[in-house]
Amino acid sequence: MILAIDIGGTQYRLAAVDARGVIKRLVRGKTDAGAGASWMIEQIVGKGSRLCREWTFEACGIGFGGPVDFDEQRVISSTHVLGWDDLPLGEVIGDALGIPAVFDNDANLGALGELTFGAGRGCRHLVYYTISTGIGGGVILDGEIYRGANGQAGELGHVPILIDGPVCACGNRGCLEALCSGPSIARRAMEALRSGARSPRLRETLREEDEVSAKDVAEAAEMGDSLGRALMRETVDYLSLGVAAAVNAFAPDRVVVGGGVARAGRILLDPLRTAVASRVMPVHRDLVHISRATRGDRSVLLGASALARRSL
Amino acid sequence: MILAIDIGGTQYRLAAVDARGVIKRLVRGKTDAGAGASWMIEQIVGKGSRLCREWTFEACGIGFGGPVDFDEQRVISSTHVLGWDDLPLGEVIGDALGIPAVFDNDANLGALGELTFGAGRGCRHLVYYTISTGIGGGVILDGEIYRGANGQAGELGHVPILIDGPVCACGNRGCLEALCSGPSIARRAMEALRSGARSPRLRETLREEDEVSAKDVAEAAEMGDSLGRALMRETVDYLSLGVAAAVNAFAPDRVVVGGGVARAGRILLDPLRTAVASRVMPVHRDLVHISRATRGDRSVLLGASALARRSL
Repeated sequence: MILAIDIGGTQYRLAAVDARGVIKRLVRGKTDAGAGASWMIEQIVGKGSRLCREWTFEACGIGFGGPVDFDEQRVISSTHVLGWDDLPLGEVIGDALGIPAVFDNDANLGALGELTFGAGRGCRHLVYYTISTGIGGGVILDGEIYRGANGQAGELGHVPILIDGPVCACGNRGCLEALCSGPSIARRAMEALRSGARSPRLRETLREEDEVSAKDVAEAAEMGDSLGRALMRETVDYLSLGVAAAVNAFAPDRVVVGGGVARAGRILLDPLRTAVASRVMPVHRDLVHISRATRGDRSVLLGASALARRSL
Repeated sequence: MILAIDIGGTQYRLAAVDARGVIKRLVRGKTDAGAGASWMIEQIVGKGSRLCREWTFEACGIGFGGPVDFDEQRVISSTHVLGWDDLPLGEVIGDALGIPAVFDNDANLGALGELTFGAGRGCRHLVYYTISTGIGGGVILDGEIYRGANGQAGELGHVPILIDGPVCACGNRGCLEALCSGPSIARRAMEALRSGARSPRLRETLREEDEVSAKDVAEAAEMGDSLGRALMRETVDYLSLGVAAAVNAFAPDRVVVGGGVARAGRILLDPLRTAVASRVMPVHRDLVHISRATRGDRSVLLGASALARRSL
């Protein structure tokens, strides 16, 4: 058994995962950005210790929602929780639990999770997107997580899409993330509503909840709302540019899309396949296999278990 | 000694290259697109046979200016010469000359040439652009040419830069190639001149030669011509978007820029370094090493010799 941990911006989860990727137990807690790293680690170690009494874990794998120096096994920085910077997270948690631990950023592990137990099974080269609060990327080349010269390769959410587009969290303008992350889709919807776009359904949501989310936009599109549909078309258009660039660059066996925004399902993925096929170079047209992540919000946990198993 | 051959759209060259990458003899001929593949091969084999009398070659490496199925060692297609399609080019030339031959597309070999004997020496991960008639890309990962699932990875000239930009040879719109290849820079200059942009220098060129080239634009910029400078700024801006996307995705040790347009030199590369550094993600900022290809128009020949040597 492997102890898998996924530390994200809103919650953290611990799971007991067997060799076939079956999650035998899952516990979770809320991330408290203000409480600091030592409090968070205390919570995680507390829940981990209880799991350790129930199972004998061979190793622990941890996915972290921020940039990680994998070779040095240290957190580079985090916007989620204060005090993570430079923390040797695997060592701290592993020592406290008495099992060897290894960690990586969550997008890399999402890619590895889908490769090992999900939509990417059997692939040699895999490009993975997680579209939620931001857009993360993970790239598997020849069956291994590709990390590049500084361990930070695969940042596919930061391909430029609109030259004078909105400012992105990375400091650049018009990145894929600044247009197609969940909050970016919601922002585009709010801008359209403010500028008077017709949308009975989204205006109703706005009245009731004071804001609209990417989920509201996808639902409105499903119901035939004209603004919802226009926003989804635009989202597909932007995404197809980023995915086509990645296919041209990496020529992967498969592209897997996970994260909350991928839950929109066919309304997003069917037109995305068509748009990407029309945008990639002709030699790559037959290569465009785009799937939704089949392990959903468990890709990272499963990838963390696969990483730990590989590191044994 | 290795026999290296570079087959491009305007000319083909053969070279005797030693183990240290020194070119001991270079012969060339003109590519005749209308004359067909068998005529071209006859010419190449004729010149190759004469070189074979002078030297004993252990192997032959060939760079081809078009998509290549490396695993099958066949040309996929060519816009340069009729009748190349599906040709087992290495086998045909190798059999005729009586030496083992291997071939790949020229951008991959340009990357390998710079890695082995040029600006990329000592790099583990290298991203290479060749900016001339088109924009080709070659990616070296862990010291090897990265080919992807179908052998066609590394098409870095086809990252989308302008969402509704000019139509590209690949069929997409607004690709880097459609904006920053030599002919694309010339086209942007002609458009600006037609719409009345002030440019004493480029208008003089236009009067004398009926057209302006990317080289004219770079020279005008060097001389302080306002349109020349504006066009170079725009070129750097577009290029920086593509290079920043590649750095975010591949996190290479170095980016090497070759091809005719790179001959513009510092007027292109100095502002490009600054622009790319401002556009990549903060974690990649220290990684931005951009160099001009030091082996110039011989990168492909040297890469072909390196490929042949590796295949022995």
